[in-house]
Amino acid sequence: MVDASTTPLLDTVDTPADLRKIAPADLRQLADELRQETIAAVGVTGGHLGSGLGVVELTVAIHYVFDTPRDRLVWDVGHQCYPHKILTGRRDRIRTLRMGGGLSGFTKRSESEYDPFGAAHSSTSISASLGFAIANKIAERPGKAIAVIGDGAMSAGMAYEAMNNAEAAGNRLVVILNDNDMSIAPPVGGLSAYLARLASSKEFLGLRDLAKRVAKRLPRPLATSLRKTDEFARGMAMGGTLFEELGFYYVGPVDGHNLEQLIPVLENVRDADKGPILVHVVTQKGKGYAPAEAAPDKYHGVQRFDVITGTQAKAPPGPPQYQNVFGQALVEAAKTDPTIVAITAAMPSGTGLDKFASAYPERFFDVGIAEQHAVTFAAGLAAQGMRPFCAIYSTFLQRAYDQVVHDVAIQNLPVRFAIDRAGLVGADGATHAGSFDVSYLATLPNFVVMAPSDEAELVHMVHTAVAHDSGPIAVRYPRGNGVGVELPATPEVLEIGKGRIVRQGQKVAILSLGTRLGEALKAADALDARGLSTTVADLRFAKPLDEALIRKLLTTHEVAITIEEGSIGGFGAHVLTFASDNGLIDAGLKLRTLRLPDTFQDQDKPEVQYAQAGLDADAIVDSVLKALRYNSDGVVESARA
Amino acid sequence: MVDASTTPLLDTVDTPADLRKIAPADLRQLADELRQETIAAVGVTGGHLGSGLGVVELTVAIHYVFDTPRDRLVWDVGHQCYPHKILTGRRDRIRTLRMGGGLSGFTKRSESEYDPFGAAHSSTSISASLGFAIANKIAERPGKAIAVIGDGAMSAGMAYEAMNNAEAAGNRLVVILNDNDMSIAPPVGGLSAYLARLASSKEFLGLRDLAKRVAKRLPRPLATSLRKTDEFARGMAMGGTLFEELGFYYVGPVDGHNLEQLIPVLENVRDADKGPILVHVVTQKGKGYAPAEAAPDKYHGVQRFDVITGTQAKAPPGPPQYQNVFGQALVEAAKTDPTIVAITAAMPSGTGLDKFASAYPERFFDVGIAEQHAVTFAAGLAAQGMRPFCAIYSTFLQRAYDQVVHDVAIQNLPVRFAIDRAGLVGADGATHAGSFDVSYLATLPNFVVMAPSDEAELVHMVHTAVAHDSGPIAVRYPRGNGVGVELPATPEVLEIGKGRIVRQGQKVAILSLGTRLGEALKAADALDARGLSTTVADLRFAKPLDEALIRKLLTTHEVAITIEEGSIGGFGAHVLTFASDNGLIDAGLKLRTLRLPDTFQDQDKPEVQYAQAGLDADAIVDSVLKALRYNSDGVVESARA
Repeated sequence: MVDASTTPLLDTVDTPADLRKIAPADLRQLADELRQETIAAVGVTGGHLGSGLGVVELTVAIHYVFDTPRDRLVWDVGHQCYPHKILTGRRDRIRTLRMGGGLSGFTKRSESEYDPFGAAHSSTSISASLGFAIANKIAERPGKAIAVIGDGAMSAGMAYEAMNNAEAAGNRLVVILNDNDMSIAPPVGGLSAYLARLASSKEFLGLRDLAKRVAKRLPRPLATSLRKTDEFARGMAMGGTLFEELGFYYVGPVDGHNLEQLIPVLENVRDADKGPILVHVVTQKGKGYAPAEAAPDKYHGVQRFDVITGTQAKAPPGPPQYQNVFGQALVEAAKTDPTIVAITAAMPSGTGLDKFASAYPERFFDVGIAEQHAVTFAAGLAAQGMRPFCAIYSTFLQRAYDQVVHDVAIQNLPVRFAIDRAGLVGADGATHAGSFDVSYLATLPNFVVMAPSDEAELVHMVHTAVAHDSGPIAVRYPRGNGVGVELPATPEVLEIGKGRIVRQGQKVAILSLGTRLGEALKAADALDARGLSTTVADLRFAKPLDEALIRKLLTTHEVAITIEEGSIGGFGAHVLTFASDNGLIDAGLKLRTLRLPDTFQDQDKPEVQYAQAGLDADAIVDSVLKALRYNSDGVVESARA
Repeated sequence: MVDASTTPLLDTVDTPADLRKIAPADLRQLADELRQETIAAVGVTGGHLGSGLGVVELTVAIHYVFDTPRDRLVWDVGHQCYPHKILTGRRDRIRTLRMGGGLSGFTKRSESEYDPFGAAHSSTSISASLGFAIANKIAERPGKAIAVIGDGAMSAGMAYEAMNNAEAAGNRLVVILNDNDMSIAPPVGGLSAYLARLASSKEFLGLRDLAKRVAKRLPRPLATSLRKTDEFARGMAMGGTLFEELGFYYVGPVDGHNLEQLIPVLENVRDADKGPILVHVVTQKGKGYAPAEAAPDKYHGVQRFDVITGTQAKAPPGPPQYQNVFGQALVEAAKTDPTIVAITAAMPSGTGLDKFASAYPERFFDVGIAEQHAVTFAAGLAAQGMRPFCAIYSTFLQRAYDQVVHDVAIQNLPVRFAIDRAGLVGADGATHAGSFDVSYLATLPNFVVMAPSDEAELVHMVHTAVAHDSGPIAVRYPRGNGVGVELPATPEVLEIGKGRIVRQGQKVAILSLGTRLGEALKAADALDARGLSTTVADLRFAKPLDEALIRKLLTTHEVAITIEEGSIGGFGAHVLTFASDNGLIDAGLKLRTLRLPDTFQDQDKPEVQYAQAGLDADAIVDSVLKALRYNSDGVVESARA
């Protein structure tokens, strides 16, 4: 490794155009400096480390060989893009990664022309690249599209759909399979086993041999070639048939850390007159940083850390995370119920199901990045008498919306959905926010949709879901830590569609769904202090609504406010619709619905995001005062807006 | 063919148990009678014909060999299930197919224990079957799961996700690939080409040879076998590697109309101690009915027809279908705009894009049953300067919800969505209804959501979408025929977020979104006749709302009614939310939102479905009278409910 304190070559590179002026023999040093800078930056900011370190050489090689930004480079998932950002004009801001106002932790179109497509959910890169390639083809413009996609991301159906349609792009499309035998967790499934066989079936091709074969197999445009397509495709490597059968030319495996191999291969791929081409590159997650090499899962996403020792800053001690409360509650429930099974889509630890996996490995299923399959698989399990829990983040459950509707809701099958990361998610930003689940689930006939106000409620709701055999049921809860209440020794099965009054008042009613309850209680204190006696209810259910409770609250208070961590069309809209259906607004009703705003909020600290969204105690108070026609100075305003 | 007027063998079969008593030599006759009965029934009812005829022998063979219903048989898509329904206790109702109160045109759990999983959307069968198989494995129960999936359905990502996870099922899972080289339209993509090579690479194995090889390769449980897994998998057929690479044992290709081949193969598959197994069966869509064999696309879904001549009953003459108005409008727009491209997911004719495909083949993309890819591909095209129109039925766009959110809405890319079959769909029933699109799209920041009130408005909206380059825009319109208005000679670009008043009154305001406008106008006449002067507005946009128009309507009328062909959480909820946000309900507002009910409505005639849903003129009048505290006899009721 170079001297850790200086980066003389990297200092000369602001954009890929600078990179292309460097002598090939010096690229190794540049890569080392880039790796060092990546480690140093993430040491300060925290974020995704291992995946970026794995593609340092690949990043250098791609920008060296291809004509970015004219050639469109799409990083799948995008969390491996920190080295790319350093090389594409953003080094000066690299220590603002994932901070409010700083660089996104993913690629982002608005950030740079070198990010032609934002990718934060997995497996979109081939489809998007195909769009770039075909647009160029139709417009008869030059320019290639390069998708870099991990082996884990290849397990998602949409990657396969894209590959199945790629042939029309011809040599305008290059897919680089970044095979590190890891997604976030170790990968699963037939494809993964297949790739492992492929990668281990033979040595990496030696440089000379490879260059020769590549030159022979991928004829440059000017060379006369009468080779038949089939010969070309079949001859390159023995084992590449799955990709070949879908219409790709397969090249590989290639050592992804050996620039002397990577660069000639990519040059030949770039100049080939046949395509689309899939280049199978084998890399190591965390490469070049010993602590990350040793524990790639622990260094996938990191806190700030000490670069010398690798010691990560500890998260401040606090209440347990919701994900772990869920996981533990499910383990408990499963002790006495052998029909409980758990399903995750590549997030065993993020969903808290790692505990369940250890306790009941035969009842635990990690299906890979395959949410669609996860949900319909769960529906099949439910139809055969099991009690499946499908634990998927809110934002990723969007991937399986049709399966939720068609396979679960229409058939009224008792699949249990544990929806983590519901609401705002802080540093991960808009792409990972769980904004829409209440809207898209509570519209569905047959569904029960719950949201706990704290971690104790979550435990009750897990047990409520276990007991609910008459149809689908979902519980949605936020990212992060609970509020610190004691967990129940004896979990209850809640009555479906029944909320609870947490604090009784007279003039103002706050109807809270989920963990904004704490802010609602703060707001109630503030309102009480102003002489506005305030009731706070924890509705627990977005569907079915507690109609009796809502009717009572709306008809016995002067102002009512709903609050939820979700978009328009959700809990508040359902309360409004109930009120309207039943004539409760006919004679006048001061009802307001607080919800996420009609924008995609960028990453920031959660408390900043909540303030922006108008979902904190101040916003509640403000909304009540406005509804009462008080302005913020306590002055009654004129009657009609 | 047997005497077309009698079905002596079929008459002895009420359930598969009866079928299994028939001598093997007589199964050919049974199949012929089953085919004849299927043709006769669909001649009366209309419906899906070709796909059912293609699997007559397969249906007989599966029920003969496997122990249904204990063995769980899942027909993918399910529209090929008519012969299956005839053999499983439903022959007496087979002439009620797709009618109100009759049999569903798809498999349906509530209809029969022989339908363990309802499938009407494509490509769910392997996931569901895997659920059945794994549930049996965990519970240590006997019973296999059999998925029958077409080659077209194999193009969808979720089929691949399921195959990638199938290994754990072992020999409990059998996937029968029904390869008829057709989905609804001819299939597309690399997989299809691959299957064609597989099927044509060699002759069907001869009966004796096949039986011998099958016996050798798929050892029965009692036989001693030291054969290695790899040998077993590789040896069976030369070309089956794609499936093998995903962990399946591949058997085939097998002639799907030859019972003497099918039955021993399936018996061996049933008794194999290895798995999962994929059986590649080649069939012909429309087999055994000359008109359907000759034109498989025309006989995929049919009207009533004359069995002797094949002549289909003509649909009554009427205004053009919305799908064709859309297709024609896009063709017109594309004449002067070379950036317009069109994308369909296996529905070139159903979406009306067949015209576009003929006119601009190089700008037309049928991606197969791959909605996820379709949307992100469109996003890539848009990011590279094209104007993509993604034409997908409302119910199928659910498949791409995450791509709509993550790749289109968050990046604010100008993808145009043409959403057909929005609202109720008559004979296709709940699985195909487009109930949720307004709810799931209008919640999204950056989106514009339009709904035309008639076919002329649709033309304007297509041109409006062409002109809208600043972000995503969707137009949703129903199945079936327009209302008969003249199409505009010069299409207009509508102002985004502006509705129009169609009829001015004073007391009642009806705010209509979409094609319920005709019923709104009828209701207005009826209300006028009662002395309730009624305004009718065509809002055109669910998002952004025409806030000025809505404010005016709500504040200048005594009662306001919204109507839409969509679920809760959509247009009406947005109007309510706007009214609530702006204090318009504070002093009293008689506002009601008419929408689809909180149930999944079964198939029926559209007018019956609308009446059930409360979305016709009578329901509007009723709602107004109730809001005015009149009962239906015109008597004023007491003040508060």
